[in-house]
Amino acid sequence: MFRKLMTFEEAKRTVDSQFKPWFLGEEDAMLLEAYNRVLSQNIVSTLDIPPFNRSTMDGYAVKAEDTVGADENMPAILNVSGAVSIGEQPQLKVAKGEAAEIVTGAVIPEGADAVVMVEDTEREDSELHVFTALTASENIMKKGSDIKNGAVVLRKGQVLGSSEIGVLAALGLKSVKVLKVPIVAVLSTGDEVAELGKELPPGKIYDINAYSLCTAVMESGGKPVYLGVVKDDKAALTKALQTALASADMLITSGGVSVGPKDYTAQIVDSLGKPGIAVYGVAMKPGKPITIGFVGEKPVFSLPGNPTSALLGFYLFARPVLQRLSGRSVSPMKMMRAFAGSKMFSAKGRRTFVMVRLEFDTQCRLIAEPVELGASGAITTLANADGFVEIAENEQFVDVDQEVAVHLFRGSAGRS
Amino acid sequence: MFRKLMTFEEAKRTVDSQFKPWFLGEEDAMLLEAYNRVLSQNIVSTLDIPPFNRSTMDGYAVKAEDTVGADENMPAILNVSGAVSIGEQPQLKVAKGEAAEIVTGAVIPEGADAVVMVEDTEREDSELHVFTALTASENIMKKGSDIKNGAVVLRKGQVLGSSEIGVLAALGLKSVKVLKVPIVAVLSTGDEVAELGKELPPGKIYDINAYSLCTAVMESGGKPVYLGVVKDDKAALTKALQTALASADMLITSGGVSVGPKDYTAQIVDSLGKPGIAVYGVAMKPGKPITIGFVGEKPVFSLPGNPTSALLGFYLFARPVLQRLSGRSVSPMKMMRAFAGSKMFSAKGRRTFVMVRLEFDTQCRLIAEPVELGASGAITTLANADGFVEIAENEQFVDVDQEVAVHLFRGSAGRS
Repeated sequence: MFRKLMTFEEAKRTVDSQFKPWFLGEEDAMLLEAYNRVLSQNIVSTLDIPPFNRSTMDGYAVKAEDTVGADENMPAILNVSGAVSIGEQPQLKVAKGEAAEIVTGAVIPEGADAVVMVEDTEREDSELHVFTALTASENIMKKGSDIKNGAVVLRKGQVLGSSEIGVLAALGLKSVKVLKVPIVAVLSTGDEVAELGKELPPGKIYDINAYSLCTAVMESGGKPVYLGVVKDDKAALTKALQTALASADMLITSGGVSVGPKDYTAQIVDSLGKPGIAVYGVAMKPGKPITIGFVGEKPVFSLPGNPTSALLGFYLFARPVLQRLSGRSVSPMKMMRAFAGSKMFSAKGRRTFVMVRLEFDTQCRLIAEPVELGASGAITTLANADGFVEIAENEQFVDVDQEVAVHLFRGSAGRS
Repeated sequence: MFRKLMTFEEAKRTVDSQFKPWFLGEEDAMLLEAYNRVLSQNIVSTLDIPPFNRSTMDGYAVKAEDTVGADENMPAILNVSGAVSIGEQPQLKVAKGEAAEIVTGAVIPEGADAVVMVEDTEREDSELHVFTALTASENIMKKGSDIKNGAVVLRKGQVLGSSEIGVLAALGLKSVKVLKVPIVAVLSTGDEVAELGKELPPGKIYDINAYSLCTAVMESGGKPVYLGVVKDDKAALTKALQTALASADMLITSGGVSVGPKDYTAQIVDSLGKPGIAVYGVAMKPGKPITIGFVGEKPVFSLPGNPTSALLGFYLFARPVLQRLSGRSVSPMKMMRAFAGSKMFSAKGRRTFVMVRLEFDTQCRLIAEPVELGASGAITTLANADGFVEIAENEQFVDVDQEVAVHLFRGSAGRS
């Protein structure tokens, strides 16, 4: 097993190059359940949209040539031969000198090639005065002008939002082929970790990480499966990891990766299949004991037990892998510029991540104020932080008032 | 019925002041299903976290006073009286001159007030050499130092993300009280609109808006209920709207709001209850025929049939109301600065929204290029647009190369 602490950049590169996303398979999603899913196929239109020449105005369908030279003083005079109802194939034809009443969205009848707005006409019985000259196609949306039959309208890999789902509806599709969602097994290790919902036994703490990590998996487009708390027992852990690997596409554990006497996770992962552990500790703070391996193609992230380290490790390493496996582009965390509200110190030789809260000062400058990390087990740190400031290995500190980039945990600053 | 076209600002103000969000009620959500839900109550801790004085290192629990003056040349010599297992209440006590083996996360035994890291010790059988002087509380995370019993840890109205769910797990809560999600009825009107999944009859188009709007409702934190396509028939429409109002918290229709002979929606909304229609058309482009009313407390948005206008109307008017009703803060659309790639013209006297696509030019400047709106029915416009540029009523155009603010439809520029 590879035991050298890697730099943050080495670890990122190692994971990036060793991880090869595979095809998860596809499934049908009903259109109203396809929000935020990833298309697994190109969508080719089997229709012209609009499917017919369509009026874009309320008025009269006419022959443009019948209105040549017409203006307010010299209207063209036409005979209204009938009306086109919306939603129907017109039964009438427009002959020379004729006009047909029409509404927005209705089919242009045969013989007509323009629509005059009702505001540009006056009518008495069947006699229509047209006070403007029309050009051919005026106020008509041509068949196929929005989408052509046979055109690729959406592409494999696109994430479906409201406008994409609108396009699929335009084609009449009730369901659509989408990529399956990666299943991510999440388990916690440690004899001190207790499951929720029961009274807390002495000496134990509730399982925090499984819940924050399952939620982070959902946020990142995966489907978490919570496998519970596994005892720090080699046989039990081996069995749990084997079960997880058999059913999930990716595996996340927390706890059991420091150097304590019962930390078996990395050894077991390494024994379960090739290539095994790829990253065994990273020169970063917090999060140093993180290990990352691959059993066959499946990535296994073993995150520290400290809730802040675990979630930070997820964001930095597991989230990009999960996004790639989902068929999504890797979305970098959103960033904002701010000024350091206090001096922030780095850990010597380690990439340091300082959790910060954003605040405005009296001059309306955005200030990044470090959130006290407390001792390494603090749960409230992340809940109180809006994001983090990254300090390079060769920098000793960020000075007060220095401009910094804040990587945001949520979409925007402050509580949303 | 109020029939004066309002300016965009008047319409926004009218809706903002007439809409009073009410309490939707609360429900229990299991923690793993509470992602992105809104807390309906403050969360008060019933535990100290950590629940005990906890070691933050692997090493030995000692009395700090026993290590006074110790250093590499002159170690303190202690007797290891036993070991504390993780996850258990220690049975042993540390007396003067004694040390107890301990791991990270374990309970500090009675009598000890500091932990010496294993790296600062050497041990032979039960004799322990400590090469450093410790201060009281060193390497100990005190009971309640992260969260105090009785403290308010999360507040009513907070949206639950991964770190908030982690905090709830720390308290041992398996479920949490959250606000109910607003139910938004979505229906389409128009005799030309056909439901999906069947062959398209001549003269008809598929129902696009219901699907794009239902998706937009989900994106904005609501639960859409699709009520189908209603014919442009006064009795049928009245019945559909009554049904929708009886079961939903908010109502969105599309189509049937221009000046065509069969556009009944606004009249019916106005007849269904006080205060009735509040906004009857807005001097904006696109989206002029939008009407907004209230039947009792429930908002009713009647959006134009054109898919771009409908979705834009939703984003500008309905989304903020839905967010307020959900108990969320109104999140403004994200913005980016860019340069106009072409001259963009405004509609005289109307707030104009130009759909744009963002691209980088050869100098890596971000360019906002207008997406051709086509005739007013184009479906692909929105799918091709990254956002819109807003032109004020008193401006005639945006010149090429002028700097503009682009309001983004999605979280980031480009296809995500």
